[in-house]
Amino acid sequence: MKAVVLERKGVINVRQVPDMSAPGPGELRIAPHTVGICGSDLHYYTHGRVGKYIVEQPMILGHEASGTVLEVGPGVTGFKVGDRVAMEPGIPDMNSKAVKLGLYNIDPAVRFFATPPVDGCLCEEVIHPAAFTYRLPENVSYGEGALLEPLAVGMWSATKAAIKPGDVAVVVGAGTIGLMVAAAAMAGGCSKVLVSDVSDVKLALAGKIPGVIPVDIKKEDLLQRIAEETDGWGADRVFECSGNLKAYDNLWKLGAPGNVTVIVGIPADGVVPMDITEVQARETRIENVFRYANVYQKAIDLVAAGKINLKPFISDVFDMDHAKDAFDRVAEARPEDVKIQITVG
Amino acid sequence: MKAVVLERKGVINVRQVPDMSAPGPGELRIAPHTVGICGSDLHYYTHGRVGKYIVEQPMILGHEASGTVLEVGPGVTGFKVGDRVAMEPGIPDMNSKAVKLGLYNIDPAVRFFATPPVDGCLCEEVIHPAAFTYRLPENVSYGEGALLEPLAVGMWSATKAAIKPGDVAVVVGAGTIGLMVAAAAMAGGCSKVLVSDVSDVKLALAGKIPGVIPVDIKKEDLLQRIAEETDGWGADRVFECSGNLKAYDNLWKLGAPGNVTVIVGIPADGVVPMDITEVQARETRIENVFRYANVYQKAIDLVAAGKINLKPFISDVFDMDHAKDAFDRVAEARPEDVKIQITVG
Amino acid sequence: MKAVVLERKGVINVRQVPDMSAPGPGELRIAPHTVGICGSDLHYYTHGRVGKYIVEQPMILGHEASGTVLEVGPGVTGFKVGDRVAMEPGIPDMNSKAVKLGLYNIDPAVRFFATPPVDGCLCEEVIHPAAFTYRLPENVSYGEGALLEPLAVGMWSATKAAIKPGDVAVVVGAGTIGLMVAAAAMAGGCSKVLVSDVSDVKLALAGKIPGVIPVDIKKEDLLQRIAEETDGWGADRVFECSGNLKAYDNLWKLGAPGNVTVIVGIPADGVVPMDITEVQARETRIENVFRYANVYQKAIDLVAAGKINLKPFISDVFDMDHAKDAFDRVAEARPEDVKIQITVG
Amino acid sequence: MKAVVLERKGVINVRQVPDMSAPGPGELRIAPHTVGICGSDLHYYTHGRVGKYIVEQPMILGHEASGTVLEVGPGVTGFKVGDRVAMEPGIPDMNSKAVKLGLYNIDPAVRFFATPPVDGCLCEEVIHPAAFTYRLPENVSYGEGALLEPLAVGMWSATKAAIKPGDVAVVVGAGTIGLMVAAAAMAGGCSKVLVSDVSDVKLALAGKIPGVIPVDIKKEDLLQRIAEETDGWGADRVFECSGNLKAYDNLWKLGAPGNVTVIVGIPADGVVPMDITEVQARETRIENVFRYANVYQKAIDLVAAGKINLKPFISDVFDMDHAKDAFDRVAEARPEDVKIQITVG
Repeated sequence: MKAVVLERKGVINVRQVPDMSAPGPGELRIAPHTVGICGSDLHYYTHGRVGKYIVEQPMILGHEASGTVLEVGPGVTGFKVGDRVAMEPGIPDMNSKAVKLGLYNIDPAVRFFATPPVDGCLCEEVIHPAAFTYRLPENVSYGEGALLEPLAVGMWSATKAAIKPGDVAVVVGAGTIGLMVAAAAMAGGCSKVLVSDVSDVKLALAGKIPGVIPVDIKKEDLLQRIAEETDGWGADRVFECSGNLKAYDNLWKLGAPGNVTVIVGIPADGVVPMDITEVQARETRIENVFRYANVYQKAIDLVAAGKINLKPFISDVFDMDHAKDAFDRVAEARPEDVKIQITVG
Repeated sequence: MKAVVLERKGVINVRQVPDMSAPGPGELRIAPHTVGICGSDLHYYTHGRVGKYIVEQPMILGHEASGTVLEVGPGVTGFKVGDRVAMEPGIPDMNSKAVKLGLYNIDPAVRFFATPPVDGCLCEEVIHPAAFTYRLPENVSYGEGALLEPLAVGMWSATKAAIKPGDVAVVVGAGTIGLMVAAAAMAGGCSKVLVSDVSDVKLALAGKIPGVIPVDIKKEDLLQRIAEETDGWGADRVFECSGNLKAYDNLWKLGAPGNVTVIVGIPADGVVPMDITEVQARETRIENVFRYANVYQKAIDLVAAGKINLKPFISDVFDMDHAKDAFDRVAEARPEDVKIQITVG
Repeated sequence: MKAVVLERKGVINVRQVPDMSAPGPGELRIAPHTVGICGSDLHYYTHGRVGKYIVEQPMILGHEASGTVLEVGPGVTGFKVGDRVAMEPGIPDMNSKAVKLGLYNIDPAVRFFATPPVDGCLCEEVIHPAAFTYRLPENVSYGEGALLEPLAVGMWSATKAAIKPGDVAVVVGAGTIGLMVAAAAMAGGCSKVLVSDVSDVKLALAGKIPGVIPVDIKKEDLLQRIAEETDGWGADRVFECSGNLKAYDNLWKLGAPGNVTVIVGIPADGVVPMDITEVQARETRIENVFRYANVYQKAIDLVAAGKINLKPFISDVFDMDHAKDAFDRVAEARPEDVKIQITVG
Repeated sequence: MKAVVLERKGVINVRQVPDMSAPGPGELRIAPHTVGICGSDLHYYTHGRVGKYIVEQPMILGHEASGTVLEVGPGVTGFKVGDRVAMEPGIPDMNSKAVKLGLYNIDPAVRFFATPPVDGCLCEEVIHPAAFTYRLPENVSYGEGALLEPLAVGMWSATKAAIKPGDVAVVVGAGTIGLMVAAAAMAGGCSKVLVSDVSDVKLALAGKIPGVIPVDIKKEDLLQRIAEETDGWGADRVFECSGNLKAYDNLWKLGAPGNVTVIVGIPADGVVPMDITEVQARETRIENVFRYANVYQKAIDLVAAGKINLKPFISDVFDMDHAKDAFDRVAEARPEDVKIQITVG
């Protein structure tokens, strides 16, 4: 079959790889239809590694995928050939202590698409566990289905934040993840979400989410705007999505007494300053998220219900033969680009 | 000043009562503008009592109120004369153990408008603590402001349910409180809310809330519909709002494993059957609500943001001189009536 | 191998059954050493069924077991031949939605020892998943290891109760499960636990748990005693462990405002009355438990640390050849008997 | 009356100050009996300030106090002259938003004993709200009553940690607060608590708490010891009590997947590094604590029940006339000193 292979740092080929075998018990054979390009895919391409994960042999890229069921393995119920589906890309060791605790996303043994040495799904066929595959309703497109993966990060962040109905949230950073978090926080119960950034273009994209108040921090003081929007109380929930160390200059002051601050973005060097004086004064609860758990179906339900509109965030689509162009486009980092996707076959 | 006084069971007069004195420290003097009629107001009128609370002397009716600030007591900040406001009607003993625990609504010493022997607010002036008064934004009308009180019950129910983003909920009963709960649950994070009832008219009203799926249980099996909407899993959150013993025939089967079921409705005799086999099989968490706490501002924020639309639920408005007609209208229990309100002055 | 087989209602034989095969991947072959007799074992013996589970073919009894590892299956780490272990008796479908959510105990597909048609572990060898097997420290005996199963019910009840350090709890009913709940609640953070019963003998057993205050409700009013012990506030946590409908006469009045009431006992007919007036006045949270999840290791740690002393609760031990005598002893329901155990081989 | 007055940095006098007036509504007049010296008292003495709080006029020191009721103000119930009591030293604005939310400790308007410009309680009489005064049982001494204040910090930390029965905890730092946290965590449900420090003397004190495992990090690797005690899983709960920046070198690695880490200690410069990689990999929840709320009665109950033994932590007692000597003793920072107290009158 044909696949988008990262041969080594900087070299992507669309070429033949060995076919998949038949699905085992509990598994499905799936033809990926649309695959989004994530920052991590790009980073493997441009740097040959992400953190401790190093590309040491050719690897198929891609982990944000929707597709069509080709074959149903033994014992699988609830799926039939032809079903349109989305795939959750991380598969834990189902016998681990983390799984028994409901923490499957942080099982140390999790296998994740396109994380060396595990292949991704930018190819014509994959074998995937039915337990991590979700049927798409008719009114959710393949493109939206592939966007469920970054949306799942937003959903999980909003879930961990334990939003109460009517809470006011702040999302720092209007990049792809910031937008997904803002959409999930609005759908997840907030009355309003302030999204801060320095880019007009990004803020305009954020403004497309009903209920979002874009705050251009080049022109406006974020703390003061929060005070205005909350009668001086502070934000009930804060999401750090910029991964920018400068955001920490005032991050710990954004929340109200008793706030929950969720750290989503990952700064380059991985260490950030926590201002004890500020977080103690508010008894801030800090939640940290790693990927997501148990949110795919809920994300599908919100998209199908129209409470989350993903369409504005599909910026461009390439076909598989132009996969390298798609990656180069992502590398350009155009401010107006949220998500670039590739269609397979 | 003029007030709507329940002289005794069955006798309402609009008549003069003594004026209010000046507000004390922390208090406001407020002119009620719009006051909704609650089922409890009606019950005092028709039965002379609600549970253990008995009308033994003339009492001013009404506890669902918005109004205008007339005078600001010593030490009060954040309010000025002319502010449009809503009043939270229950005032706890601020030195009680319940208050220290954040449970002010269940402080045994709470004083509540129009609960004997405490007067209500269907009158030209009231004295009210600033701590339980909330400013209305320009785009929230007095009528909506008065509807915040029943909405607060819905908000508190949705808050206690600990809705996760994308949850599917069921609301049993499309009366006024059922509608408020459904609206709060949708705004509070659900992807869809099934509302069940036997009245076409009530279900049509429920259907005006975006995301609500009305289920006519005269024509359709609720359990089966939930199964269809949740892929056989069951509802994540269940709200019993009918106060009807018959609802308990299948109530405990509506929820999914790990569901939260919130009991909002109060049956006539106060005791309901709990099916241990069903609630243990699902490890159902049952939450019970009494009025509400800390939700008024969040309700205002959701209404102001347009996430909750209260306008369809204001069924008719009477002026103060026709207060008795308003109560008689409520006594008719027309299915198309959600809320009847009275304007003062 | 030899096994204790319930041939049909009323007929227990100790006889040969087919040997176990080798453990598969992730599995252990274990020689049970001590197996406790549970009320459900007895009920299968005396009635041939428990609820919907009916003995339709010979079944090996027993699910409360400790033992010794005989053989380690492929891929298993953390165990070696000779390890002393306890076995958690319920095995879910690890690919189910419930498992992914961390709710493995309420997975509808769970297989549980000695629940028809699944055989129990009162036999010389069993195959068991390593993921549900726990090593016993040297200072925890096989007898205590077998008692971990009922203790797990107590642990899970105490966990679901979300006890805060210093809470005052009430346990209604001093049967085996009531004792286990009381022990877990004391170890789990309570300052004191009132245990109510009508049996002097049972109350004396409860009194062996440090911190427990036995309350003989033949002689003393429970509500009044709670008021004395809590300065009139009520119990922070309530555990219904009697399964007796009469307990519900005042159950809903035992808790304080904001209390959590955990229903552990199962009445004969499965339906109990819930007094809405009382639970709403307190906003009682009601938790329901079904077996347990993720508590075996924590139970072992508390026993090993001496915070829970199980020794007083092992009332008598029979050898396998006298298994029928052991069951007949349990059938006597002597008040001084907490747990009767059988040693295998 | 006589009081211990900090005239200005470095100058303590025991001298006459004006008498207290009569207690107002809801208040008590109390004669302090025993008052402990806190690190903040010392810091005001040695530095003239703590953070933003500056001693600009003579201030009575002391906030850890027990005493005897002298006079009961109007409307107070539950107290009588002669009652032995402990005083919670922080009094919020009971009409604040924080109080309504149950967050009274982080109300920005809180007034706290011996925090400029508010006087402390090292004097012969104080006026104190009954709502923040707690009766001591006969078996809790005045000395223990005064120690409830630092214990309350431990109780609140343990409460915020949401300990589950049988959890394994780590307390970093065996200073006074570390000891209080360890005692509260053991009483609050842990099976064992590892306490790390570099001081033999401090660790020996920690070892007096049943269930505590002292870990001398000069001799032993803490991470490795945790792995041994938790079968490689990590600590369920982590408490940072050292306030030492070096503790952060491995702090974020101590917890298990899904752990809660509570930051209690306050480093000199107030900013600490948070290692995003580590906290995301575990999805660590970080809780921050500021003083305490709603734990005094529970602390009393645990001490009265014998689950917490405070006696080993009262290192020495001075009378009021030697108050300066007591402060100088605290300034010595002898490793064997946990708490130095002063008796009044």
